[in-house]
Amino acid sequence: MTEPRGGRSEQTRAVIVDTALRLFRERGYEATTMRAIAKEAGVSVGNAYYYFGSKEELIQAYYDELQEAHNAACRAVLDRERAFAPRLLGVLRARVDTMVPYHQFAGKFFKFAAEPTSPLNPFSAESGPARQSALAVYRELVEGSDLKIEPEFRKELPELLWLYSMGIVLYWVHDSSPGCAKTYLLVERTVPLVDRMVSMSRLPGFRSVARELVGVIRDVRA
Amino acid sequence: MTEPRGGRSEQTRAVIVDTALRLFRERGYEATTMRAIAKEAGVSVGNAYYYFGSKEELIQAYYDELQEAHNAACRAVLDRERAFAPRLLGVLRARVDTMVPYHQFAGKFFKFAAEPTSPLNPFSAESGPARQSALAVYRELVEGSDLKIEPEFRKELPELLWLYSMGIVLYWVHDSSPGCAKTYLLVERTVPLVDRMVSMSRLPGFRSVARELVGVIRDVRA
Repeated sequence: MTEPRGGRSEQTRAVIVDTALRLFRERGYEATTMRAIAKEAGVSVGNAYYYFGSKEELIQAYYDELQEAHNAACRAVLDRERAFAPRLLGVLRARVDTMVPYHQFAGKFFKFAAEPTSPLNPFSAESGPARQSALAVYRELVEGSDLKIEPEFRKELPELLWLYSMGIVLYWVHDSSPGCAKTYLLVERTVPLVDRMVSMSRLPGFRSVARELVGVIRDVRA
Repeated sequence: MTEPRGGRSEQTRAVIVDTALRLFRERGYEATTMRAIAKEAGVSVGNAYYYFGSKEELIQAYYDELQEAHNAACRAVLDRERAFAPRLLGVLRARVDTMVPYHQFAGKFFKFAAEPTSPLNPFSAESGPARQSALAVYRELVEGSDLKIEPEFRKELPELLWLYSMGIVLYWVHDSSPGCAKTYLLVERTVPLVDRMVSMSRLPGFRSVARELVGVIRDVRA
């Protein structure tokens, strides 16, 4: 087989990913075979396997796609807003917006992500680049805001916000309300709380709690 | 087949569960068949299936066993201590103690628990009785303590503490440190923080945050 290269190669890869994600949405993850993906994408099965060694690797591609879509969807609010709360609200709403079309089979994906030994688990070494890319959004969210908090707490805040977003994803996976309305509600109701708690980290009494929290995060980081 | 009944039936069921859990620990969940469990337990395969329709049902039995072990392990601290922080520390340490022997195959179990449509997921209707039993420990923890906080916040605190314990379980599933030392560290380091935040809920400024939190919990409860 001739090795695919350059623009052509990128294009074929993209067609396979798009086709796979469409079939996952339409038929479900389990029922979609690599053979079916190749056929629908108009490539040979061998060619499909050249790009993706297994169906699981397509999930990693789905994560990457989701992350790119999220980055793009965050641009408007991150470029426009300086206040912390609306930046956080915008980033989290964009996160839910980009996930919603995949809700039906999120549980299937989630099963793989949940296994500690799986490379698809968001805490795995293999997920490092994807995690860094996700963290970068929360870093920009904090750094581009007018938030006034202690520097050490500020350094850890992006990771805390990412963990908070993972909690929202976890809730979303289990959310069966129409249009994932409850997940949006969770975001809208918790953002003001998080905003207030972050601001309160400057107050005497609470300051030492924030410092202790920074210490805990550094000690227990996986 | 004669229907098993009474003490004899309970005993057979317990032998099957004990055998299954031992084989899961020794051989792993995937590699253990119902046939092997029946053989080791000294019962017929038909008899084993009479008690447990599938291997997955044995996971529910494992949860129940774990919950009973946790209830028993909490007795000493809940009967002896009145202060909130040591009660919480004792309950969470007992929780980790009872889980540690199963760490190797926790990931396998976790995969099932993570699927939103699975009856084994801790938020499912089928897990209701197990969840209520788990919540009861945190209710006793709060109600038997000398904690002075607003009544409405006090009512929601057991569920918040249970969610916090689920976060610790999630960390534990991914913990690869020897003897799960990092999970114990996480418990020891976060309990004082949680204790301080709970106590601070009485302070002006923080009181409205606690009230808002109660409202959010009630609105977004699954």
